[in-house]
Amino acid sequence: MAAIGSEIERLIALLSKLPGLGPRSARRAALALLKKRDTLLEPLADAMQEAAAAISSCEICGNLDTQSPCAICSDPRRDTHILCVVEDVADLWALERAGVFRGRYHVLGGALSALDGVTPERLNVSSLLERVQHGVDEVILAMNATVEGQTTAHYLMDLLQGRKVTRLAHGVPVGGELDYLDEGTLSAAFKARRAL
Amino acid sequence: MAAIGSEIERLIALLSKLPGLGPRSARRAALALLKKRDTLLEPLADAMQEAAAAISSCEICGNLDTQSPCAICSDPRRDTHILCVVEDVADLWALERAGVFRGRYHVLGGALSALDGVTPERLNVSSLLERVQHGVDEVILAMNATVEGQTTAHYLMDLLQGRKVTRLAHGVPVGGELDYLDEGTLSAAFKARRAL
Repeated sequence: MAAIGSEIERLIALLSKLPGLGPRSARRAALALLKKRDTLLEPLADAMQEAAAAISSCEICGNLDTQSPCAICSDPRRDTHILCVVEDVADLWALERAGVFRGRYHVLGGALSALDGVTPERLNVSSLLERVQHGVDEVILAMNATVEGQTTAHYLMDLLQGRKVTRLAHGVPVGGELDYLDEGTLSAAFKARRAL
Repeated sequence: MAAIGSEIERLIALLSKLPGLGPRSARRAALALLKKRDTLLEPLADAMQEAAAAISSCEICGNLDTQSPCAICSDPRRDTHILCVVEDVADLWALERAGVFRGRYHVLGGALSALDGVTPERLNVSSLLERVQHGVDEVILAMNATVEGQTTAHYLMDLLQGRKVTRLAHGVPVGGELDYLDEGTLSAAFKARRAL
C-alpha cells in the first residue's frame, strides 16, 4: 500500500503478534503510538528495552523477575513447606493479586496437550519433583479448570503419590449467577456443598 | 504486588494505554513479550524507536510518513485537482486499502465535537481552505457517518460554498443484510435508490 511506509508496516506487523490485537487493532495501536510520540511511543520503547535487559526467568520457580531467584523465592517470610504449582506466570500473578497464598510457587510453563504436542518433558516437571524432595509438606495443584489443566493435574498427582497433594475448589464464582453457569460448574458446586 | 517487578508493572501500564488493550490484556501482552524476547520484544522495541525517529506528519496533508511531503503528496501520478478530506490518518489508510481514489488527501485530525471541546481551530481547516485556492476542482468530504463527522462535513460545506463539494454515498454496505441494518442506513439507501 502506497500510503503506509515500511517502518509503519513493520510496526503494525509486530503489534499484531500481541495477544488480543488483530490486524485492525494493531493499526489503531500503531496510529495511537505515532500520535502520542512523547507520552507513549518513546516511553513504551524504553520500557520494553529495559524489560528485555532486566527481566529473566527465576532459576527456582520459573517466575519472571529482575532477579533470580525471584522476589518470592528469596523472601524469607514466605513458607517454604507449601508449594503451589501453576501453569503459567500469569496464574502466579493472579494468585498474588488475590493475596491468598504465602508459600512458594512452581511454574510449569504450560499444560499437557496432545493436540499442541506439549509432553511432560516440555514442562518444568523434573525440577518440581526435585523441589518436593526438600522439606515440602503440601503441593497445591492450581491448574486451570480446563481439560488440559486437569489432565496435567492428574499426571502430577500420580507422580506425587504418597505426598499431601491438594487442588483448588470448584464451585460458583463469587458474584456469579447460577443462571449463567455451565452444568459442569453447577454440578461441581452441588457435589461439594457445605453445611452452614 | 510483590510478584511483579517495577519494570514489568511499567511495561503493563504503558501497554494498557494502547487502544484495544485493557489492564488484563495488557498483562497478557506483557507476558507474551517477555516470553518471546528475541522474536517479539526486541524487534518491537527496535521498530518503535525507528518509527519514532523516522516518521512525522506530512506538512501538506497531515498523513504520517517517513518523508514530508508524504509519498502521496509527492507522487506526480496522483491527481492534484481532487482533494479528499478525511478525519484521521486511519481513514486515509482505509481509502488507500480500497484503492478507489487517485487524488490527494487532507487529514483534519479529528471531527468537531462540542462534548470533547474540538473547535474548528483545533482541526486542520485553515490549511484546507488555503489548499483549495490552488487548482482544486472537487473536494470530497469523506467524514465518518457519525454525528460529529456529519457536523464537520456541514461546517466545511458552508466554508467551501461556490466550489464543487461531494460526499460519500450512504447505503447498504456490500455484503450487509437488511435485517441487521439500522433505520437510518435503510432510509438513506431507500432515498438514494438507483434505476437498474
